Parts: sequence; structure tokens; C-alpha cells
Amino acid sequence: MKKKLKIGLVGFGVVGQGLYDVLQKSPALDAEIVKICVKNKRQRALPESMFCYSGEELVKDENINLVVELISDADAAFHIVAAALRNGKDVVSANKKMIAENLAELIKLQEEYGVSLLYEASACGSIPVIRNLEEYYDNDLLLSVTGILNGSSNYILSKIFEENKGYAESLKEAQELGFAEADPSFDVDGFDSLFKLVILTAHSFGTVVNPEEVLHYGISNISDFDIRFAREKGYKIKLVGQVEKLEENKISLFVLPRLVKKDKYIYNVEDEFNGVVIKGLAYDKQFMFGKGAGGYPTGSAVLSDITAIGHDYKYEYKKKNFYKEFLYVQSGEIEIYLRYRKDEDLAHFNFISISEEYTGPEYNYKIGLISIKELLAIKDHLREMDIFIAVTRKTLNY
Amino acid sequence: MKKKLKIGLVGFGVVGQGLYDVLQKSPALDAEIVKICVKNKRQRALPESMFCYSGEELVKDENINLVVELISDADAAFHIVAAALRNGKDVVSANKKMIAENLAELIKLQEEYGVSLLYEASACGSIPVIRNLEEYYDNDLLLSVTGILNGSSNYILSKIFEENKGYAESLKEAQELGFAEADPSFDVDGFDSLFKLVILTAHSFGTVVNPEEVLHYGISNISDFDIRFAREKGYKIKLVGQVEKLEENKISLFVLPRLVKKDKYIYNVEDEFNGVVIKGLAYDKQFMFGKGAGGYPTGSAVLSDITAIGHDYKYEYKKKNFYKEFLYVQSGEIEIYLRYRKDEDLAHFNFISISEEYTGPEYNYKIGLISIKELLAIKDHLREMDIFIAVTRKTLNY
Repeated sequence: MKKKLKIGLVGFGVVGQGLYDVLQKSPALDAEIVKICVKNKRQRALPESMFCYSGEELVKDENINLVVELISDADAAFHIVAAALRNGKDVVSANKKMIAENLAELIKLQEEYGVSLLYEASACGSIPVIRNLEEYYDNDLLLSVTGILNGSSNYILSKIFEENKGYAESLKEAQELGFAEADPSFDVDGFDSLFKLVILTAHSFGTVVNPEEVLHYGISNISDFDIRFAREKGYKIKLVGQVEKLEENKISLFVLPRLVKKDKYIYNVEDEFNGVVIKGLAYDKQFMFGKGAGGYPTGSAVLSDITAIGHDYKYEYKKKNFYKEFLYVQSGEIEIYLRYRKDEDLAHFNFISISEEYTGPEYNYKIGLISIKELLAIKDHLREMDIFIAVTRKTLNY
Repeated sequence: MKKKLKIGLVGFGVVGQGLYDVLQKSPALDAEIVKICVKNKRQRALPESMFCYSGEELVKDENINLVVELISDADAAFHIVAAALRNGKDVVSANKKMIAENLAELIKLQEEYGVSLLYEASACGSIPVIRNLEEYYDNDLLLSVTGILNGSSNYILSKIFEENKGYAESLKEAQELGFAEADPSFDVDGFDSLFKLVILTAHSFGTVVNPEEVLHYGISNISDFDIRFAREKGYKIKLVGQVEKLEENKISLFVLPRLVKKDKYIYNVEDEFNGVVIKGLAYDKQFMFGKGAGGYPTGSAVLSDITAIGHDYKYEYKKKNFYKEFLYVQSGEIEIYLRYRKDEDLAHFNFISISEEYTGPEYNYKIGLISIKELLAIKDHLREMDIFIAVTRKTLNY
């Protein structure tokens, strides 16, 4: 059942090199990296003959039957991945942005050319959440998937809540340790979590959602006031992505900071770890926990996909192909904590009802119900205001 | 890719009825229970025509293409399952004892008759651990699988350590709530964990181990003295099964009570929950957590297997078929806490070295290194002595 894999590797950064190392420790896997495509020529530890400088050349190489794509540029990655699929090559990718933005097209290409594209490493690093949703939770029982999907912002939040540090200091520490990029926006503003959530949604409920139509907001505006508020009430703030089944074959999804109580599984997910809670009828809640970021954990997820390709594994997109379609809806209400300073910022928020309000010398806050649609309409402006938003109570009243 | 499933159900106890209910909530699954085999005729909620009273009749029924076996008698179960496989029917089973005691034969029957036998529900209830070992951790990176595998004894230990109750009282409570059987020995003396560990070992390292050759010891001899000892030192006692890769393609496995510190993932696994830590190179530690017992969680695992049969899924026993063979060895040493009263009991234990010893008016204890082989030689007598054993430090010096 096993086929010999001749791998063309695209990108040789932290994950690519991690994979190279991990493959050396996997003698039982009949896989060999025959070519590595990189952007620029420079002195490297491997012989020059291993490298090429054109993705086009690589995807046409007849010695290669599997392309492993590990670059960060999503557009360039899509170009290479699509070309590889069209050339009849299987592909493994860890590029969440590329996958999430092009999922419909990528599913079509797989069907059309009879090839397999696997991307377990694109969501939650080493935790096999896509595979489990596809293979094990492939029935009508699934109710929701909720998780801490971004290791960088979780690392920052851990420093804040475990070590009493401020946001700026924690961010700097995360950057120094390589857990956050120089431009941290992709992580801390929730883009990374959003793309992962879109991917998980396709395998949870079969719905391919355009990331641009999903509410997402991150932690970059968090202030000491917010941290103090959460701590006083016995909460931690976590950045949480969630997709949930509603009535009548509808689903809702969003990425938002959340005030999390001690009794929740994700309360104890700290540092660069990810944790996913899968909730369903009969089995109630299941929790998967592991390293969400870093070269080796991601490399190990890529390795598992490579092994699966060796066994001719394909995602069947079972939820999409065998179940009634779930429709993504933006309706519904959530209860949020809104911290603000100026009334002109507050004016953007049309609360349906308010349960708590506070005004003080430093900041003000309101806690109340608001419609998801209203937040979505102003989502691109949320970061510009001097505010912070966190979900206090789960979604309601769909 | 999906085939219509006509199910013959064997056994209609808690799990069988749970499955029946769960199937009603799964309209997308094209599966129907056409016959239920039970031992005795009596008034039931379903029409009499659904029932039959002979396993032999059921496995020959041409209207049935899938047999779901959910009875407790392991020998009767094996008889029916083997006959079903020989009759070309796929089988789903939750019977850990039957699987563990007959695994080699069951693998052979699957190959010989080209049928599929799935048994995810047999280990850790609703947690898809077998499937993940088979499909995702199917590479050379895996180092160990460690877990709380038995919900009943974990429930009892939770009552003891969380609610300051004694063993007898906690056991009684577990029995009243249906978490433990009237004869609790199967759970509290580690047999249940042992059978699960044997199954996990086959899918972790490809080795089919005879359960009789494995060291296992449970919690039924735990005394208030032991509980106080653990508590004073900041430990909880947990019943833990572990299989571990050693050097040179060897593995070691055993089920023993363990003194667990707060920094371990399994420290927080409470009540009837199970938790499994999968450790490997590159991804470090992953943790899976969920309900390990009860009709509905088990029913949901059985349902996932039924769905997988619908997609023609088979265990490939990848570790066994594609990797170098791992040999089960009984060598190695562990550090244990031995509580005893009489010197004649102590005389059975040949400590290699002793790091702590205590004598007192009530009980005595020693902490020291002992060889696994020595414990194995007297394993059937351990329960008869007035002693308690718990691992204090992980295995050493293989």
C-alpha cells in the first residue's frame, strides 16, 4: 500500500529545516527530499545541487511526486500549489492563509486532477484536529469546535496573566523567543486564528466560508485596565475561535477575545500551546492539546501528512459531500465587555441591552448584548478605536 | 464511497441502547439496525420481530453486512465475532477483553476474509486514540503512550483525593452511580486498563502482547495511610497504563498506581474521564481528554466506527506491517513506594536500592528501585498481601 515519495520542498525556513531533520529520524518512511526550491542563492548546509530557484521548474520535475509547500507568501504559495496539483502531484502545505483564502478552488483542483492536498499543519500545529474532524467526528453529533488556535497571542496572554507582565513587554518577549513575528499583526489581531477557523469549519460542517466575511478581532488593543478587570473577576482573557452549529442547518463562527472562567478546558492552555474543544451529542466534550507553533511541532504534522500521502490518503471532505449543507449566517447576538474612553467610540456600538456599566477616571466599560452583524459591519475599524472587546457570555438567540 | 449498512446488533445493554438512541440522531448515516441478538426473551420497548436469540443465526443472516458486538462475556463475544468475520461481515466491537486476548487471531481473520474489525470504543471510550495512533502517529517519532485508561477507578480516586473520602465509601458511590460494577475487580484491579493498554500497544508499536505476560496491579488495596502519604507529599494517586519505546526496538508496558505530581497532564484528569498523553520526537507531548465510560460516550465511539465501516475503513496495523518489529521485554527497573505491615510480606520484594524507609505504629513503607521482572513473578499474589504499591519514578535503566 505504500508508495515511494520523491519530495520537492518549497521553502527552507524554520519548518522546512525542521522537517528535513525530522525526516532523518524516520527511516521507516520511504520518502526522500530530492529538490528544495528557495528564493535566493546563498551558502547553505546542503549541497547546491539540491536547490532550485523556480517553483515552476520544481512542479514540472518528473522525479518529484509530492510537493511540500512551506513558504509564508500566500499568493506565491497558491500559485505553486495549484500548478503542482494540475501537474498531477500530491501536495502537503502548512499555509493557513493560502488554504483558507482558496479552499473552494483547491477542493475543485483535487477532484479534477485526482490528487491529494493535505494540510494538517495549517491548523493547530501538531494537534491532528483536521484529521479527527474528517475521520472520526464525521457524523451528525458534532455541535461545536472551540479553540485557542494561535500560539503567539496565547504566549503573550500567558505572560500577562501568569507573570503579571504588560502587553508590550510580553509581546517583546514573544518576539525575542521567536514566538511572534516582527510585524505581529497576523497573530495578535486574529488573522491567523481566523484562517485556521475557516479551515476547521470546512472539515467540521462542510461549509467553505470566505474569511473576509467572518468577524475577527484580536488582542493588540488590550490595556492594563482590561487585564485588571479580568483578573478581579477571576477570568483570564484568551483569544478564541469558535464554529458552532445552530438550528436548521446553520452555523456561526468568529474569532474574539474571551473572558474565560477556571472551569473551562481552555483556561489552562498556556504559552505557545493550542487547545481545541470538540463538543457533540453523546460524547459531550473532548479536548485535544499540544504544541501549536514552532518548527518541530509543525514539521511533525507535515511528516504525518507525508506519511498519509504514502498510504494514498485523501481528505474526502465528508461533511461537504455526504451531509446536508450548513449555511454560514451572521445573525445572532453575543454579550461583550466593551472598554472605551470616548463617547464617539461608544456611539459605534448599538447595544440591544446592557447589564453592567462603569465610568471612571481612566476608562469606562459596558457589558451588554450586541448583534454579531453590527460588529461585522465595523470590524475593519475596531482596531483604530481606543477600545477593547471581549466576549463575556457565549452566543445567544440565533 | 458510502455503502448502506445493515446492522446486526449483539447485546442490548447500556451501550447497545445508547447506540440505538444515537443512531436515531444521525440521519446522514445510512445505517439501520435490522436485528438485535439478546440472551433472553422478555418485554422490551422495541417490537419482538427485531430480536433474535442466537448469535449463530445472526452472523449467517444475509440481510446483515455489519455485526456490532456489545456484550460483556469475552468468550461468547469472540465466538460470535470470529464467526461473523468468517462469514464475510465487518464487525465493530467494544469488548476490550475479547480484543486483547485474541488480537493475533483477529488480525489474521481480517486478512484472511478481507473484512474489517474496528474497536475504537474498546479503549478510552469516546477518545479516538486507536484511530490517531493508527493514522496520525504512524511514524518513527512515537516514544510513549501513557494514560488514565479506566474511568471507574479514576472516579474512585477522584472522590478520595478531591473530596477526602475513603476507598470503600468512594467505591460504593461509584457503584451506586453505575460507574463501577457490583464486582469491581475488573476495573479497580487494573484488568480493564491492562486490556486497553495491550490494544494501544498493538497500534502504537505493532506488537501483539499476551495480557497475561504484563505486570498489572490496581487500587483495591489502597489504605488511608497511602492516601495520607500521597497527600502530604503533594501527589495524587492515579492508576496509569504506559507503553514506552526503549532502545534497540524494545518496548516495555505495565499498569500500576502512580504518585502523580501537579505538573503532569494526567494530574487534572478527574472523575470518569480518561486522558492519554502521546509523547514523541518533534511534537513533544500531546494530550487527549474525554469521557471514558458510560453508554453514550461509548455509543458515540461505536457510531464513529460504524461510519468508518461505511467508508470502507480498515485498520492497516501499520506499525506491525510497515515497521521493524518491537519486542516486548520485561527487563528494567522502576522506583516504587511499598507500604507494608509484616516482614513476611516485605520479604517478597528484592529491592535493588532503597532511598527512603519508614516504620511506624500503623504501617511501614520503603521507597526504592525494584526490577519489573521480580514484580511480574509475584503479580498474582500482590493483592493477597497487606501491601500497596505505587510507582514514584518512571522506569529506569533498561
